[in-house]
Amino acid sequence: MGWGDLGVYGEPSRETPNLDRMAAEGMLFPNFYTANPLCSPSRAALLTGRLPIRNGFYTTNGQARNAYTPQEVVGGIPDTELLLPKLLKKAGYVSKIVGKWARPNIPVYRDWEMVGRFYEEFPIDLKTGEANLTQIYLQEALDFIKRQQAAQRPFFLYWAIDATHAPVYASKPFLGTSQRGRYGDAVREIDDSVGKILTLLQDLKITKDTFVFFTSDNGAALISAPKQGGSNGPFLCGKQTTFEGGMREPAIVWWPGHIATGQVSHQLGSIMDLFTTSLSLAGLEPPSDRVIDGLDLLPSMLQGQLVDRPIFYYRGNTLMAVTLGQYKAHFWTWTNSWEEFKQGIDFCPGQNVSGVTTHTQEEHTKLPLVFHLGRDPGEKYPLSFASTEYLDVLRRITPVVQQHQEALVPGQPQLNVCNQAVMNWTPPGCEKLGKCLTPPESVPKKCFWPH
Amino acid sequence: MGWGDLGVYGEPSRETPNLDRMAAEGMLFPNFYTANPLCSPSRAALLTGRLPIRNGFYTTNGQARNAYTPQEVVGGIPDTELLLPKLLKKAGYVSKIVGKWARPNIPVYRDWEMVGRFYEEFPIDLKTGEANLTQIYLQEALDFIKRQQAAQRPFFLYWAIDATHAPVYASKPFLGTSQRGRYGDAVREIDDSVGKILTLLQDLKITKDTFVFFTSDNGAALISAPKQGGSNGPFLCGKQTTFEGGMREPAIVWWPGHIATGQVSHQLGSIMDLFTTSLSLAGLEPPSDRVIDGLDLLPSMLQGQLVDRPIFYYRGNTLMAVTLGQYKAHFWTWTNSWEEFKQGIDFCPGQNVSGVTTHTQEEHTKLPLVFHLGRDPGEKYPLSFASTEYLDVLRRITPVVQQHQEALVPGQPQLNVCNQAVMNWTPPGCEKLGKCLTPPESVPKKCFWPH
Repeated sequence: MGWGDLGVYGEPSRETPNLDRMAAEGMLFPNFYTANPLCSPSRAALLTGRLPIRNGFYTTNGQARNAYTPQEVVGGIPDTELLLPKLLKKAGYVSKIVGKWARPNIPVYRDWEMVGRFYEEFPIDLKTGEANLTQIYLQEALDFIKRQQAAQRPFFLYWAIDATHAPVYASKPFLGTSQRGRYGDAVREIDDSVGKILTLLQDLKITKDTFVFFTSDNGAALISAPKQGGSNGPFLCGKQTTFEGGMREPAIVWWPGHIATGQVSHQLGSIMDLFTTSLSLAGLEPPSDRVIDGLDLLPSMLQGQLVDRPIFYYRGNTLMAVTLGQYKAHFWTWTNSWEEFKQGIDFCPGQNVSGVTTHTQEEHTKLPLVFHLGRDPGEKYPLSFASTEYLDVLRRITPVVQQHQEALVPGQPQLNVCNQAVMNWTPPGCEKLGKCLTPPESVPKKCFWPH
Repeated sequence: MGWGDLGVYGEPSRETPNLDRMAAEGMLFPNFYTANPLCSPSRAALLTGRLPIRNGFYTTNGQARNAYTPQEVVGGIPDTELLLPKLLKKAGYVSKIVGKWARPNIPVYRDWEMVGRFYEEFPIDLKTGEANLTQIYLQEALDFIKRQQAAQRPFFLYWAIDATHAPVYASKPFLGTSQRGRYGDAVREIDDSVGKILTLLQDLKITKDTFVFFTSDNGAALISAPKQGGSNGPFLCGKQTTFEGGMREPAIVWWPGHIATGQVSHQLGSIMDLFTTSLSLAGLEPPSDRVIDGLDLLPSMLQGQLVDRPIFYYRGNTLMAVTLGQYKAHFWTWTNSWEEFKQGIDFCPGQNVSGVTTHTQEEHTKLPLVFHLGRDPGEKYPLSFASTEYLDVLRRITPVVQQHQEALVPGQPQLNVCNQAVMNWTPPGCEKLGKCLTPPESVPKKCFWPH
C-alpha cells in the first residue's frame, strides 16, 4: 500500500472511511518510513527493531540489490535476533501473526500446521480477482482478540493483510465496488476490516488498553499500476526504490483516551519504532546488547515531542540516502538497469527526474544530491551545490552518516543463497491433508537479484 | 493554488488547519474543475457562468493558445455578458470583489478609485517575499461583511487573494513559518485569513445565511516550483495544461446547518457552477437567452445528488479534452513547444508520459486518448484502443462532444489585440495622488501567446 492510498492522505476517490476515521480519532504521521523498499526486509525490521543491514535481511550478491524471501531462499531471521513477540512474552503477552509473512506462496498455516495451499485451498481467481483471504484474516484477528479479552491476557496482534499486493484481490461483496478498480476493491476491504477490528475493541471496551497502529511495508508497486497498483501521492517512484514513493508510508496511531484526537505529528518515524514503542507500552526495556534502530514514539504521541533522528534508506548492502529533518541526501541513485527498463520494468512510470531517477547506479557519496522535502516532496529539485543551504545541510548530515557507518556491524547476509530443496515441501500437518511433496535434490546456488 | 496544497487533500506538511476544518465542517469536492488552465478566463467564467469560448475570453491568434489579460490587452468581458453581481443585484445583493482580477499590475483600486500602484504603494519585497496585501484584502473582506450585516443587506463577496501567484508573498508574521518555503508561507496566510472570515461569520451569527465556497482558478504553476510553486497532488502537470494538474482544483463548501458536516461529493463540479448556484441561492433563475455552462450544485450539496455532466477542457479555441464520469478523453495533447521547453519552460517538471505530455500539438480527434481517472488519476495509462471498455467510453462520450460542438456559438475572441495605449495610464483618482501618466501612441497589434 502506498502513502497516497488513503482518503486522509488525499486519495481522490476517498474510499477509506474507516482509516480516515481512525486518523480523525487518532494521530497521523505524514513523515513515517518503512525500513526497506520491499516487503520481507521491512517486516524483519519491524520484528527486530533493527535495520535489515544489521539483522541480516539483505544480500551481497551484487551492489544495492533488493532481496526478499521467496520460498527457495536459504536464510531467515538469524536465531541471534530478538523478535518482538518473544520479548513481549516476558511481560505476559500472547502474540499472533495473521496474514502475509513473505510473498504469496504455497503452504498456508494456521498456528503451527499447514491448512492447505495458496491457489489450491486458498484460491485467488486471477481473472476476476476474487478471493476471501482478507475475510479469513479478519476472522482470525477478531477471534484472537476476543479469546485474549475473555482470558484477560495482554496480546500483541500483527495483522498483516496482503490484498493490495499483486495479484490484488477482494472478496465478492467488495469486488467492483471501488472507483479505483480492483486495487481499490482490495483497499476497501482492508479499510472495512480495520473498521471491524476497531469496532470490536470498542464493543469489548478495551480501547483504552489497546494501542493500534496502521502502516505499510513498502510504497505502492507502480510497476503493477494502474490495474494492480496504488498511489504514492505526490512522491517520487514506488516500491523497490529509495525515493520517497518507495519508503514513505501511511501511518496512523489510535489509542482513545491517551492520544488526543485529530492530531498530526511531523516526527520522522520508522516501522522499527513499533518494536521499541511496543516494548515501552509493555513496560519493557529494549535490548541493550545490540544496536536498536527503533525509537520509542510514545513521547511524540502523548506529549507531542519532536526528536531529531535520521532515516536511513538502504538497498541491500548500500546506504542509498538519509533524511534528517526536512533534508534528504542521496548518496546513490538508481531505479533499475537500462536492460530491465527497456523490457518495460519501470518503477517510476510517467516520472523522470534527470540525474535522479537514473538507470545506472550513480554515486554521489562525495557530493550528495540534497532535496528539501518540505518545498519539494517529489524530489525534483536538488539544492545547488554552491548554495549556503547545501553546505549547511551537509555539515549537519555528514557526521550523522559517518557515525552510523563507523558503528555499523553488518549482519551475516541471509539472502545470498537459494535452494529449491529448502522450500516447504513437507510442512507440519501435510500428512493429514495428504499434501506432502517430495523435495528435490539440494542444489544451493547464488540467488539472482536483478534490482 | 493547486489541488494538493491543502492538508485535507494530502499535502504532507499539513499547514492548512482552517481550510481543513472548513472541509470537516462542510463538504469536499475532490472532482472539481476550473474553466481554464489559467487565471483570467477562469475568472471570467466564474462571473458569467459560461465557458471562455462562449464569453469571448480566448484568442484565435494561433491554435490552442492560453491567453489572459495583461494590462495591454484590448478586450474584456463583452458588455453583452451578464455578470453574477449584476444579476444578484435584482435580488437586493450588494457585491464586492477584493483582490486579484488579472495579473499583478500597476494601479490598485479601492471601489472606483485608484489608491496607489502595485510595487510602489503596495510593494512586494522580491528578495524576502514580504508584502501585507493579504492582510489588506482580509481587512477589506471583514469590513465589507460587517457593514452588510449591520445594514442587514444580503451580500456577495468575491474574495480573490493572490498570494500564491508568483511572485508569492506573505506578511511578516507568516514569513518563514512554513515547512514548504515561501509558497507555504503564502498558503498559511491564506488559510489563516479564511479562518478569520469564517470566525467572523460565526461571531455575527450569520453562518446559516452565508454560503461559503473555496476554490482556485488554475492548478499550481509548476514552472515556478519549488520556491514559488505549489502542489497538484497525484495529478499530471500544472497550470497552462489541460491535464488534471492544470484544471482540477481544491473545492470546499461550508454552510453550517444546511450542508452536513464531513461530507465528500464526487459530483463533477465546475467553477462555473458557482454562478448558477449563487443565483439559485438568491432565488433567481439563470439567464435563459444564452447557454449557461454552470449547474446548480445545491441538489448535490443538500441531497447528495449526482448528476452526469461533462467537463470541457479548452486551451484558447481548441477543445483539448472532456471528462464524463470517471473517463477523460483527450482530443489534443500539448504541453508547450519544444522551443520553449528547451529554454527551460516546463509545465510538467519531473513528469513525462510518452505520447501524452507532448511538445508538439498532437491530434487525437479521431481516436481520443482515454484515461480512467479513478484507477489512473495521473493520466499515465491510456486505455487500449482495442478494449471493449474503450469502445464503450467512446460510444458515451462522442455524442456529448458532438452535441456540444454543434450547439457552440463561439464568442468574439477578446484576447487577440494588444495595445500599450489601453493600459491604465490615468485611472480614476490618479489626479488626487499625482499618479497620472501620459498614455503612449495607440499601436494595436496581435497579442503574442506562446503556449
